[in-house]
Amino acid sequence: MKIIIVGGTGTIGQAVAQELGQRHEIIRVGRRGGDIQVDITDLSSIQAMYDKMGDFDALVATTGQVRFMPLSDLKPEHYQFGFNHKLMGQVNLVRLGLASIQAGGSFTLTSGILNHDPIRTSASAAMVNGALEGFVRAAALEMPNQVRINIVSPTVLLESMDKYATYFRGYEPAPAARVALAYSKSVEGAQTGQIYKIW
Amino acid sequence: MKIIIVGGTGTIGQAVAQELGQRHEIIRVGRRGGDIQVDITDLSSIQAMYDKMGDFDALVATTGQVRFMPLSDLKPEHYQFGFNHKLMGQVNLVRLGLASIQAGGSFTLTSGILNHDPIRTSASAAMVNGALEGFVRAAALEMPNQVRINIVSPTVLLESMDKYATYFRGYEPAPAARVALAYSKSVEGAQTGQIYKIW
Repeated sequence: MKIIIVGGTGTIGQAVAQELGQRHEIIRVGRRGGDIQVDITDLSSIQAMYDKMGDFDALVATTGQVRFMPLSDLKPEHYQFGFNHKLMGQVNLVRLGLASIQAGGSFTLTSGILNHDPIRTSASAAMVNGALEGFVRAAALEMPNQVRINIVSPTVLLESMDKYATYFRGYEPAPAARVALAYSKSVEGAQTGQIYKIW
Repeated sequence: MKIIIVGGTGTIGQAVAQELGQRHEIIRVGRRGGDIQVDITDLSSIQAMYDKMGDFDALVATTGQVRFMPLSDLKPEHYQFGFNHKLMGQVNLVRLGLASIQAGGSFTLTSGILNHDPIRTSASAAMVNGALEGFVRAAALEMPNQVRINIVSPTVLLESMDKYATYFRGYEPAPAARVALAYSKSVEGAQTGQIYKIW
């Protein structure tokens, strides 16, 4: 399979590339690094990425930013930032990718634990994660040509605990290699409309 | 208690008013009808509503629009419509209401079944419902002055089946009076951060 990983230079993306790269052709896409660059908030940048790519079998998105701020500081523009970036960035990868994905191909998006098991400052992140999961469940019903779509909801990564431990006290971290298995299940399996919770 | 129902002229809002009106002072807010009018997509309109209202004990939001369209027709502006309307409309009712809600008061928002149990054309609706549920779970952690926040996820209403039956074949409809009980539990109970699923 020819598999595009948007966010392929990040911690999860690298682990997914390592897992799936044993058996498939991987194209790593990053904001600045990777084999190809994309700005997921820019429709023309996404379109340019797909134009370079040609037909493909699977797209994995392990990317997207949101604002972490106290609830009392979150203003409409901060929610809009997460909407434009992590949420519509991933949704637009699906929308525009449908033109060149092979029949039976798959999209695998990324949410995160915070809409189910929140921390302080996570209102926008939780909003975006819940939005992505709702979108995936519904969009799976209308994918053309047996294309599938799933989403992975990872907990905090073991590799990120040096930076984030104070925010995630009591959370059991998962190694990126374990999270990567869920993407393998989505890409190489047959399920659709699933939320794979790694927690 | 002094309870504001935004969407108080709709099917659910009327049932909530009937349930809670037996024991509390109700102010019905509608887009055109009701005791006071508000445009929930307009921050200054929300602020004007709260300025007229004075202090209050509970806000119930049973309002908000999204676009129902085939996945292949949904463009960024249709997703943005649902973000501005049902999603940020309700979130901004909470944000701006925090200035005049009494200590120990409550916000009760409304999502819907479609992010858990989707139908065709519901990708934007499912996105918005999931977003609202994630927001409520996370925001509950940061409410000041023991203010609570919950959300009700109703299935299709019995009263709407003449219009929507073809879209919801096999779904068990709920009478609005039964859905209204969940708002009563949220407003008159002690729980916070809950999703009340009426299905």
